[in-house]
Amino acid sequence: MRMIDLIHKKKHNQELSEAEIKFFVENYTSGNIPDYQVSAFAMAIYFQGMSDQETTTLTQSMVDSGDTIDLSDIEGIVVDKHSTGGVGDKVSLIITPLIASLGIPVAKMSGRGLGHTGGTIDKLEAIDGFKIELTREEFTNNANEYKVALAGQSGNLVPADKKLYALRDVTDTVDSLPLIASSIMSKKIASGSDAIVLDVKVGSGAFMKTVEEATALAEIMTSIGNNLGRKTVAVLTNMNQPLGREIGNANEVREAVEVLSGKGEQDITEVSMVIASHMAVLGGAYSNEEEARKALDAKIASGEALEKFKQFVEIQGGNFDSIYEKQASHVVEVKAKEDGALVSVDSEQIGLAAMKLGAGRSTKEDEIDYSVGISMHHKIGARVTKNDTLFTLYMNDSSLQADVEETLHNSYRISETYEGEYEYVYKIIK
Amino acid sequence: MRMIDLIHKKKHNQELSEAEIKFFVENYTSGNIPDYQVSAFAMAIYFQGMSDQETTTLTQSMVDSGDTIDLSDIEGIVVDKHSTGGVGDKVSLIITPLIASLGIPVAKMSGRGLGHTGGTIDKLEAIDGFKIELTREEFTNNANEYKVALAGQSGNLVPADKKLYALRDVTDTVDSLPLIASSIMSKKIASGSDAIVLDVKVGSGAFMKTVEEATALAEIMTSIGNNLGRKTVAVLTNMNQPLGREIGNANEVREAVEVLSGKGEQDITEVSMVIASHMAVLGGAYSNEEEARKALDAKIASGEALEKFKQFVEIQGGNFDSIYEKQASHVVEVKAKEDGALVSVDSEQIGLAAMKLGAGRSTKEDEIDYSVGISMHHKIGARVTKNDTLFTLYMNDSSLQADVEETLHNSYRISETYEGEYEYVYKIIK
Repeated sequence: MRMIDLIHKKKHNQELSEAEIKFFVENYTSGNIPDYQVSAFAMAIYFQGMSDQETTTLTQSMVDSGDTIDLSDIEGIVVDKHSTGGVGDKVSLIITPLIASLGIPVAKMSGRGLGHTGGTIDKLEAIDGFKIELTREEFTNNANEYKVALAGQSGNLVPADKKLYALRDVTDTVDSLPLIASSIMSKKIASGSDAIVLDVKVGSGAFMKTVEEATALAEIMTSIGNNLGRKTVAVLTNMNQPLGREIGNANEVREAVEVLSGKGEQDITEVSMVIASHMAVLGGAYSNEEEARKALDAKIASGEALEKFKQFVEIQGGNFDSIYEKQASHVVEVKAKEDGALVSVDSEQIGLAAMKLGAGRSTKEDEIDYSVGISMHHKIGARVTKNDTLFTLYMNDSSLQADVEETLHNSYRISETYEGEYEYVYKIIK
Repeated sequence: MRMIDLIHKKKHNQELSEAEIKFFVENYTSGNIPDYQVSAFAMAIYFQGMSDQETTTLTQSMVDSGDTIDLSDIEGIVVDKHSTGGVGDKVSLIITPLIASLGIPVAKMSGRGLGHTGGTIDKLEAIDGFKIELTREEFTNNANEYKVALAGQSGNLVPADKKLYALRDVTDTVDSLPLIASSIMSKKIASGSDAIVLDVKVGSGAFMKTVEEATALAEIMTSIGNNLGRKTVAVLTNMNQPLGREIGNANEVREAVEVLSGKGEQDITEVSMVIASHMAVLGGAYSNEEEARKALDAKIASGEALEKFKQFVEIQGGNFDSIYEKQASHVVEVKAKEDGALVSVDSEQIGLAAMKLGAGRSTKEDEIDYSVGISMHHKIGARVTKNDTLFTLYMNDSSLQADVEETLHNSYRISETYEGEYEYVYKIIK
């Protein structure tokens, strides 16, 4: 078998066999196939796409390229959740204790990563003492006894994807739906859960800008998951403005606590509850999302959801109250320059502003400042008056103020009236 | 400027600027842009094509990547000729003395290469003593005094193309018309001639299988040439069977002598005369092809064309008579197995048979055996009787006989009748 023949077939829109895709993944991972052939192949895939069968085989082959996590010693159905990434996305912080409070195990290994803020484990590290390195035994015991364990990823998961993604990133071949889908799903499947809920973000702050694109991606991902024996549901959610009010690490943890206390903003609450309902049904505890939703609402009303979050923090060594002490040294208000209705925001720009403050990483080496961030006080559709505070900046380096303020002023548009309707959840794809 | 942005533009079918194309060629040649970005770029070009302006700029940038040959000290208009490659193609051997016999200078630097037989300079080396290394002074003097000089290429011509072609070859991105056209034309333009006649082969023995494809390629090439100040004409010729009767090195030289003596096969004679006519017009000696053709016919009838060939061989140190002594040790006849009309041949297979005998190179290191080759005694449309000799093999290694005979028997088809009409020249594109 020769890689050039695989490139030729894909270029001419012929379906690759299982053996051919395995050959590609194995030999690219081992270094026998050079980058320059794979980048041409990826570009041919960009233009010609991949069949359902090809994408599924690619995903399985990538899973097989490295270690996989075995969660079979955890009792019950383990449901994982993945977000394609948005601004102010603290859904994982919320649904982790929420699902656990239903008695459904959450056993999640998470990587760090690049972005406007840290990932879920970075955010949890904003809590003093929170330990993300668990032994295998602690992880399993916590998941079985408390129904919640969240640890940093160890082992060499999906090395094929790491190598392929790094190449796609420098050859403008990232935006191929089957390659995006197989990259995401290979990591989810290697992580060992029984079922998966995907939060596919749509809008200005997301990779997928339209519901059509997001639907296409979601259909490929759910198909892969279901083909490979993982019940998979995708929830398409609105990312045309940051989710909730807070962007940052400590302040997102604080906002998660508000949602778990029943006092969260409507958008983050709704999105979290819809995702959690689907997880609860996949976890086998409820026969439909309506029942699951009622149970989840009850867990919040009774305080059990918040208690579970406190327990989760405690068993992983964290000091819950410390999140209220993590405050930046400079607090600056960014005020509206005119009266009117907030008609649009550029979430991407707001995310970048948070990253500039130090909330996220642009390279692996960057250190996160847990205490910095941005609060966004008005959401799309709100009427504002000149000098109303639109954003509050929490920063430790005041020299950044002018630049970040300018970025934020460029990120929204105020007009006379807003006549749209802002949906939180667009659709569900199973 | 970043290569990834160029890939992105091409992927989205946006036209690249002159500065962007120069950036790509310069930095790829110097090693600043990695192969893996260029192969993705080449694949995007395969799918999206290139505009006339882009292709012209690419060609000029590739010319600028290395040395160029300055023919300004040669009097008159120097017309070069290039063939896209066929089987039995000895046109250059014929037109070189033919054009010189009109008083139009032929000053050609030729590379070696891979193929079913050697290139023009390899074929000439079948003549004992023929010297292809000329000093710059000898080259210029011969071209001015005798109107004919042919030397092996020296200098570092179009290194960008060498590097790019080697990459395209292993990434299945060879068959992009703008990339083929710019590769060919960059070498022709770097070679310094004032005008160019392109022999674009079409058919089973050629890269371009249909007149449509060949027309598209020819239009791009003539456009590049004319855009860059070289009058360029393309002649589309039929390569559905080997040209003439001989395939090999010494035997192609002998056949060239026959054509120059007015005793050549009809197809090779016609193709050579059409190409030479266009060269003669571009060379400024005649106002139209009909006049040029008459003059060329006269040069053959008078013996001057043949005399020019003998002079050409002599001034470059060759012993003309030696070509009749270059004979292989084994001569084998391959006979028809049935009666009927020869309806098709697979030129590619016949070429491969010649290469197996040692007439050509499959790798740069292969040595050519000048005396081996194949004669093809019947052309498409001929009626043959069982046991008529179809081919004669000239070989020095008799162990190859069975394999080569089988290849040849698989290369033709005999049927009851042939009703086609075999055109030699399809069209002219200026």
